[in-house]
Amino acid sequence: MKITMAHGSGGDSTSKLISGVFSKHFSNKYLDKLGDSAVVPGASRLAMTTDSFVVNPIFFPGGDIGRLSVCGTVNDLLMSGAVPKYLTAGFVLEEGLDTEDLEKIVESLQKTAEEAGVQVVTGDTKVVEKGAIGGLIINTAGVGFVPEGIDLGPEKIKTGDRIIVSGYLGDHHVAILGSRLGIENDIVSDAAPLGEMTRALMEAGLGIRAMRDVTRGGLGTVLNEFAESSGKEIRVEESFIPVSPTVKDFCGILGLDVLYMGNEGKMIVVVSPEDADSALEIMRSSKYGENAVGIGEVMEDSDSPALVLRTEIGGLRTVGPLYGEGLPRIC
Amino acid sequence: MKITMAHGSGGDSTSKLISGVFSKHFSNKYLDKLGDSAVVPGASRLAMTTDSFVVNPIFFPGGDIGRLSVCGTVNDLLMSGAVPKYLTAGFVLEEGLDTEDLEKIVESLQKTAEEAGVQVVTGDTKVVEKGAIGGLIINTAGVGFVPEGIDLGPEKIKTGDRIIVSGYLGDHHVAILGSRLGIENDIVSDAAPLGEMTRALMEAGLGIRAMRDVTRGGLGTVLNEFAESSGKEIRVEESFIPVSPTVKDFCGILGLDVLYMGNEGKMIVVVSPEDADSALEIMRSSKYGENAVGIGEVMEDSDSPALVLRTEIGGLRTVGPLYGEGLPRIC
Repeated sequence: MKITMAHGSGGDSTSKLISGVFSKHFSNKYLDKLGDSAVVPGASRLAMTTDSFVVNPIFFPGGDIGRLSVCGTVNDLLMSGAVPKYLTAGFVLEEGLDTEDLEKIVESLQKTAEEAGVQVVTGDTKVVEKGAIGGLIINTAGVGFVPEGIDLGPEKIKTGDRIIVSGYLGDHHVAILGSRLGIENDIVSDAAPLGEMTRALMEAGLGIRAMRDVTRGGLGTVLNEFAESSGKEIRVEESFIPVSPTVKDFCGILGLDVLYMGNEGKMIVVVSPEDADSALEIMRSSKYGENAVGIGEVMEDSDSPALVLRTEIGGLRTVGPLYGEGLPRIC
Repeated sequence: MKITMAHGSGGDSTSKLISGVFSKHFSNKYLDKLGDSAVVPGASRLAMTTDSFVVNPIFFPGGDIGRLSVCGTVNDLLMSGAVPKYLTAGFVLEEGLDTEDLEKIVESLQKTAEEAGVQVVTGDTKVVEKGAIGGLIINTAGVGFVPEGIDLGPEKIKTGDRIIVSGYLGDHHVAILGSRLGIENDIVSDAAPLGEMTRALMEAGLGIRAMRDVTRGGLGTVLNEFAESSGKEIRVEESFIPVSPTVKDFCGILGLDVLYMGNEGKMIVVVSPEDADSALEIMRSSKYGENAVGIGEVMEDSDSPALVLRTEIGGLRTVGPLYGEGLPRIC
């Protein structure tokens, strides 16, 4: 089998590649959970994650590869309930890259690290031939500590739980795609570190079951993973899915489905029904969550657990994870 | 300024790029040490490191990019006195890569992780367009724990300390270069995890001051860094530098200097004079250290600390770190 761009989509093909090639060999009790970060025992509990950023272009409306490479990794740690502490930064540079551009990116990375409350503690630099990678690739790995008593994960999801999304979907996707196609619009990437929001949720002691940032593969892929891990149907009201008017128009023109669009500063929270209102209020009063909204709930156990949309005219439609390519090099 | 291949050499240009662009922005007390891994406080002390592997070709005599990406990262942790525990693995795959090749690499990575006693606990996969990177790039970040009482570093180096190198130099460099040039020879890469050797050294409670794996940039670059950090002259007997006859011939023909050749399973140990013999004996009886040998010693404080070679005819020659390109994509 040959690798195709679809293997990088974050959807179905990526997941097949991971289970077919990686999980088979690397199997251990931490990795087998296939979370976005691994929680491993330490003197305290450590969370670890890694992400390589291959976004093209490296500067885009609302951000750059430097900001992205902090947000992606920090958010992965946050979703496991961890407090992010340290980042490593591995740069693969292309011969001919302008060091002024590199410096802008490094500065943006550092500024975002400060915003997220993490320190970049070690790094590595490699150079590859011109024309190879479109500027640079950044890998960031992150380490955080998981406080006592915190134990989140899609396997904790219960029937009746509510699904909240933290804001408008698709902005990062449209910012990247618009920028590549040269389409003028005022949409900027939503790339943001979500620590303020998750910290407030954790500190409130609510019945949070699981959190997940909605990146490559989009809402449709995340909620299918949640359905599968919990063994339950997840039902979402299509009309409640938050999308800004400009993104909605952009998607309409290009025939894109917001369910599969990537974001870099949006998350899903699954919370007990009695705490749903409090969670929503906390999210709405935090920096990157003002447009948070409840979109659905967790139904009964199911033999074929899936994401089901209730459409605007009242019908039910089962929705799979992303198949095929998605947008290459979105993060 | 434009990035050139020299910025990836691990020598002088890399170091200028790091101080000129990265250190300026990322400055904090962990990163500022510019060690190959950072030791950060945790409930225990954590060591963290990251390395991106861009080696070309991805399969070479004696190893592959998978084995390399464990050895490089694990060895960086070991050099800080840490016990490596967990790895993250970030794969950037090229469209068109054969999944059979990918699987061989993943298998080799896992086998080497087992040899090194570490677990790959989380991963990430991205795909870039065909022709971009020559197969794949792997980033591994590593986390280890530093036992109480262990505190190594070139700033601990004292006058009179001995310099030991763990075996023949240049094998990995020649294996990669020979393979690219299609030169037939029987030299295989020395890529190896050095945990058995460092563990034995640590457990013996010897006066070990500093350890460093001799990778990109070679012995000349490492010993210049040690001279600079300690503020002392480091004097090495040229004729003691261990090189296999085949590598010596290869270097002779191509005009290569073994002082600047990269290795992936060799290390330098700086040890107190009274413990030098014991250290040497321990290294020689460990798996990858049978050809370990003392090559020199640490002299007095110096206003211009440097590496000085005593040549075979008795002259003294000051030797700088690697300038310029070195061999691109060696690791």
